[in-house]
Amino acid sequence: MLGRINHIAIVVPDIAAASKAYRETLGATVSQPQTLPEHGVTVVFVELPNTKVELLEPLGEASPIAAFLAKNPDGGMHHICYEVADILAARDKLVASGARVLGNGEPKIGAHGKPVLFLHPKDFFGTLIELEQV
Amino acid sequence: MLGRINHIAIVVPDIAAASKAYRETLGATVSQPQTLPEHGVTVVFVELPNTKVELLEPLGEASPIAAFLAKNPDGGMHHICYEVADILAARDKLVASGARVLGNGEPKIGAHGKPVLFLHPKDFFGTLIELEQV
Repeated sequence: MLGRINHIAIVVPDIAAASKAYRETLGATVSQPQTLPEHGVTVVFVELPNTKVELLEPLGEASPIAAFLAKNPDGGMHHICYEVADILAARDKLVASGARVLGNGEPKIGAHGKPVLFLHPKDFFGTLIELEQV
Repeated sequence: MLGRINHIAIVVPDIAAASKAYRETLGATVSQPQTLPEHGVTVVFVELPNTKVELLEPLGEASPIAAFLAKNPDGGMHHICYEVADILAARDKLVASGARVLGNGEPKIGAHGKPVLFLHPKDFFGTLIELEQV
């Protein structure tokens, strides 16, 4: 079921400072910040040769990552996104195995414009897993 | 400086159960467990098409990941390992930028038999970064 790792998401308190650290200190290729008000985040893409890291800063009052940052004020690794070929087939297999899908169980359109689902971290040893149909 | 993501490390409390979940529930290719007493971990490799996830369970009394698991009893994402071409050049550039290298600042031989360094998570927004010379 799991395909490529599409991205690793890291929540940061200050995306300008984090972009500078990844670009200048770590010497990575870093995009300009993009504000995604409908997803409650500002995102910067750190492009690596085989995948990417997404730096996320909360945007707006209802940001879905605000609680994570309140609990982890320095920031931290937030989730791993795996690509799947068929998100409904993946969802059905997962639910049949007893895994819990967050929200109402239906895929939503994610920040990349593609269908995504999140799996309950308690079912995967503390790791929040996003599945994205590509 | 940063090359490929070599692996994402996830600490788990029960590597047999985690292996089963990644193999059976998530449908990934998962290695047999390997005990690495000199590194204080048992490791399982989850092979993805573009990189790998390493599931780590503490091994022995002095395991370097025991404190993380005590703080995160369910488990959680522990570090990201990036490949670099020249770890001493990377270290010198990082130190000149004010970043802190953990330990005595000298590369150690990591679990893959190659020189590695860890960077202080406070300098990188709560993310523990490993650099591995490949």
